[in-house]
Amino acid sequence: MTLSVYLSGEIHTDWREQITAGAEGLDVVFSGPVTDHAASDDCGVAILGAEDTKFWHDHKGAMVNAIRTRKGIADADVVVVRFGEQYKQWNAAFDAGYAAALGKSLIVLQRPEHDHALKEVDAAALAVARDPVQVVEILRYVLTGALPG
Amino acid sequence: MTLSVYLSGEIHTDWREQITAGAEGLDVVFSGPVTDHAASDDCGVAILGAEDTKFWHDHKGAMVNAIRTRKGIADADVVVVRFGEQYKQWNAAFDAGYAAALGKSLIVLQRPEHDHALKEVDAAALAVARDPVQVVEILRYVLTGALPG
Amino acid sequence: MTLSVYLSGEIHTDWREQITAGAEGLDVVFSGPVTDHAASDDCGVAILGAEDTKFWHDHKGAMVNAIRTRKGIADADVVVVRFGEQYKQWNAAFDAGYAAALGKSLIVLQRPEHDHALKEVDAAALAVARDPVQVVEILRYVLTGALPG
Amino acid sequence: MTLSVYLSGEIHTDWREQITAGAEGLDVVFSGPVTDHAASDDCGVAILGAEDTKFWHDHKGAMVNAIRTRKGIADADVVVVRFGEQYKQWNAAFDAGYAAALGKSLIVLQRPEHDHALKEVDAAALAVARDPVQVVEILRYVLTGALPG
Amino acid sequence: MTLSVYLSGEIHTDWREQITAGAEGLDVVFSGPVTDHAASDDCGVAILGAEDTKFWHDHKGAMVNAIRTRKGIADADVVVVRFGEQYKQWNAAFDAGYAAALGKSLIVLQRPEHDHALKEVDAAALAVARDPVQVVEILRYVLTGALPG
Amino acid sequence: MTLSVYLSGEIHTDWREQITAGAEGLDVVFSGPVTDHAASDDCGVAILGAEDTKFWHDHKGAMVNAIRTRKGIADADVVVVRFGEQYKQWNAAFDAGYAAALGKSLIVLQRPEHDHALKEVDAAALAVARDPVQVVEILRYVLTGALPG
Amino acid sequence: MTLSVYLSGEIHTDWREQITAGAEGLDVVFSGPVTDHAASDDCGVAILGAEDTKFWHDHKGAMVNAIRTRKGIADADVVVVRFGEQYKQWNAAFDAGYAAALGKSLIVLQRPEHDHALKEVDAAALAVARDPVQVVEILRYVLTGALPG
Amino acid sequence: MTLSVYLSGEIHTDWREQITAGAEGLDVVFSGPVTDHAASDDCGVAILGAEDTKFWHDHKGAMVNAIRTRKGIADADVVVVRFGEQYKQWNAAFDAGYAAALGKSLIVLQRPEHDHALKEVDAAALAVARDPVQVVEILRYVLTGALPG
Repeated sequence: MTLSVYLSGEIHTDWREQITAGAEGLDVVFSGPVTDHAASDDCGVAILGAEDTKFWHDHKGAMVNAIRTRKGIADADVVVVRFGEQYKQWNAAFDAGYAAALGKSLIVLQRPEHDHALKEVDAAALAVARDPVQVVEILRYVLTGALPG
Repeated sequence: MTLSVYLSGEIHTDWREQITAGAEGLDVVFSGPVTDHAASDDCGVAILGAEDTKFWHDHKGAMVNAIRTRKGIADADVVVVRFGEQYKQWNAAFDAGYAAALGKSLIVLQRPEHDHALKEVDAAALAVARDPVQVVEILRYVLTGALPG
Repeated sequence: MTLSVYLSGEIHTDWREQITAGAEGLDVVFSGPVTDHAASDDCGVAILGAEDTKFWHDHKGAMVNAIRTRKGIADADVVVVRFGEQYKQWNAAFDAGYAAALGKSLIVLQRPEHDHALKEVDAAALAVARDPVQVVEILRYVLTGALPG
Repeated sequence: MTLSVYLSGEIHTDWREQITAGAEGLDVVFSGPVTDHAASDDCGVAILGAEDTKFWHDHKGAMVNAIRTRKGIADADVVVVRFGEQYKQWNAAFDAGYAAALGKSLIVLQRPEHDHALKEVDAAALAVARDPVQVVEILRYVLTGALPG
Repeated sequence: MTLSVYLSGEIHTDWREQITAGAEGLDVVFSGPVTDHAASDDCGVAILGAEDTKFWHDHKGAMVNAIRTRKGIADADVVVVRFGEQYKQWNAAFDAGYAAALGKSLIVLQRPEHDHALKEVDAAALAVARDPVQVVEILRYVLTGALPG
Repeated sequence: MTLSVYLSGEIHTDWREQITAGAEGLDVVFSGPVTDHAASDDCGVAILGAEDTKFWHDHKGAMVNAIRTRKGIADADVVVVRFGEQYKQWNAAFDAGYAAALGKSLIVLQRPEHDHALKEVDAAALAVARDPVQVVEILRYVLTGALPG
Repeated sequence: MTLSVYLSGEIHTDWREQITAGAEGLDVVFSGPVTDHAASDDCGVAILGAEDTKFWHDHKGAMVNAIRTRKGIADADVVVVRFGEQYKQWNAAFDAGYAAALGKSLIVLQRPEHDHALKEVDAAALAVARDPVQVVEILRYVLTGALPG
Repeated sequence: MTLSVYLSGEIHTDWREQITAGAEGLDVVFSGPVTDHAASDDCGVAILGAEDTKFWHDHKGAMVNAIRTRKGIADADVVVVRFGEQYKQWNAAFDAGYAAALGKSLIVLQRPEHDHALKEVDAAALAVARDPVQVVEILRYVLTGALPG
């Protein structure tokens, strides 16, 4: 069994690298969004031409990024959505809703201080993890049956 | 043509009432979440019994609310998602993602200061409206072909 | 909003009547299996001709009953599955799995002594209720926003 | 033609090993749940933290196990569900219903004394087998056209 | 519960009328193909213009009839397929396969002499009836729980 | 049987009125796009605010019109797509492809001079009609079995 | 591009071998039913135990064969259905309907004398071929763009 | 991540070759229609026999081509639709609509002079590119995160 895992959400810390490194040796294929913030913001106009307004500048970029995001989520068995300490992160919650509607297994990765604000998102999840190590342990258990320790 | 419209998101202002009143006379059926904040937070434990931890207290409520939310979105032709000035509003973004994955026509209702943070959500929408009047005008145009003014 | 509710499972107590009576006045349409045990067991052979073996006797009946069950679950927004004190009740658990795979909102109605045995079924549910009154209260809240008491 | 086969249900006897061994040489990929009973029960709290109540202890485990179960059934062409002599085994019947709703080819593996109690489950199956050898023979026939003997 | 029933197949006897008359008083909506043989054969060219070859003459008619057939089957909960004594009746078997793939509840109505030739069709059915009265009895039981006699 | 019919395509002649008038007395519900050309072009900016470029002006309008188009096609049993004598009419062909992918019964209404250019569109259709009267005759036949003349 | 092709229908001539041999060198994966007539008829009872009646004897076999048929059709891009000179061949027409409802590309392989009887089946097909060579030529053209001669 | 890309539309310039060459080294699998115009027009009659009328000549060819087109679009993650300077190109717009309804990521490749005529098609697209280089840059960015320059 190969597990396809899409890593959605926060792009300012190295949580993706922690999970990828921790899962070494497991039969997992990871995917995720472009995490270069500047490239992600500007990809639309950089490729398809400048826009006069910030709204359409952003829009063109978001549309191009959607090609990657939709493919990643569509192919995923498991979608991990990480909510960080800052920012609105509405794209993360959007991905969670999108994944839930497609019937993907959802793992939310968040700090307890956001429990109340995330209760509807968590209600659609099969696991609420507090740090990347727990996500790795879930993947290991799901694939091998082995528990930590 | 009857249009089913689900009104998702912010529950602290009267935007739903504005839309409902504005759309009087149009062939629209509105639905939405329970907007009594306290009832919405406590419905799980009030009906199914108290929990010792806030996490499961919230969880039980979110699950019960999901019965209504899922039904409303599943039945909707159009999902309007309102993002207000405050709070994380991750449930609103979750609903937007959920609706998008089901192929619903999405209208986002938000102030321009959130344009950048909402660019991925807006990219899945067929309209980004700035006030409830515009939502009413869209519904009127879609149903009757009449433009404002 | 009209809610279609399928009442699956145990047929030896009056829990369906309690829910139906309790929900009077709410915009709910109830359906459920044939609850006349003898008719349900014998419908296949009574209509389509006798069988020499008990296996095919049972099989023909189960197939005819499936016409009603599938229709009821397919049309339902909410599927309530009641597990009683006795018997294997595998058909109830089967209905729960069937409903879950179709994305129906699932409410499990069971006594606490079955919590461990039902944990996988409960994991697919949006609510685990302990008595029919709680089911009624959920339906009332979902439809009207009103909490008990 | 490679056949993906998910082996669901009873975890107290070696029926999975019998089928896997018997099917050696056939183009079959098997999957199934974690069959280490203790790990399966405790995986939720072992990874995601302890719970004060047995209900949520069980719930967290069942949710984590669902990641594996859903993936296994979603990928399967054939789902074999084994009902043993003891216990309620509601998770087995749940898996059968889940698989049936997804249109999977269902094989039920059970002793005749359960025929009546399983008649609704059997009615959704393409075969009711009495021992693991018969399951192997079905797989061999389906893949190669060869009958036993 | 209203049951939508599509009556497919043989058009040379009055079996549809028998079922419709027998089901009087039940909450059933019947549909079926155009049973005027000549009209059914010629509808394509009668409306859309003559063809030089019989093949395209037939083809145009079959395509127009498909508008009705597809609608009828798509809307049906139950599809009854009648095989008569004569002719190839491949359209009946085609409808049965079409209905089965859509997950409709299938009832086959046929004489025993065709059992062997119809075994694959019967294998997809929830009931194999021998005369129209049995179909009526199934519909009555499914809707009311009442058995004959 | 009520037939829902979406009338897509050319908006410069009165073909919709001809069909609607001709179908009087039949159990048909018609829908279609906004056919006021100016309103259709400007609806986006008229409601949601002006744009500096023609591209986004058009885009906003097309998105708002899509709310109506998608609803109409999604609800339709039959989609009639009319190709006129002039213009590119790519939206008509787009609607035809969209309807075909959803499995709708497609009727193309076109003049013979476009047969070659429309061969891929026609290949997905159940009827190629030459004038609105033929469409009415198809609807009458499908609903009543009556042929013209 | 690899094309998965399911070869359904008549099992008394070597048409499958002709197509398979003719397609040598093309990127095609073929599948089909068990074509050993005796094995196909008896597989149910040979594996799962004898039945007293011919009906259930046949039924058990048809159900086991359905495991292979459903898998083959579900995995196929193209379903070729061959109607021979003799027999009712309702299973062939059933497969055609099943494949059509799943949106598979259907090729019917038949002699002209059956054109009228097969007109509804042909109406769902993308090609009506008269001999196996034509099927091979279609596959070659679809995969390589090369026409015969 | 491997991206499957279907290249639909105009067949008179070398835009497919430009994209394929430009994407060398990227993890992309390209597919597309048969681009030999004569073969594409005549494939139906060349394989399946001549027709007396141009309409059915075209029809048979379009049906055979549909086997390839449907497979290519069904397997694609991204569908690029190129509109050229000439001709009606209704098949291109049809493919765009077909792809949109299946939820494929759509890229439209067109000159600005067609912006108004293509506004409904563009409204369903995630990118509107002006030359093949931009399509390559989108594919590169989606797969690697690298922007041009």
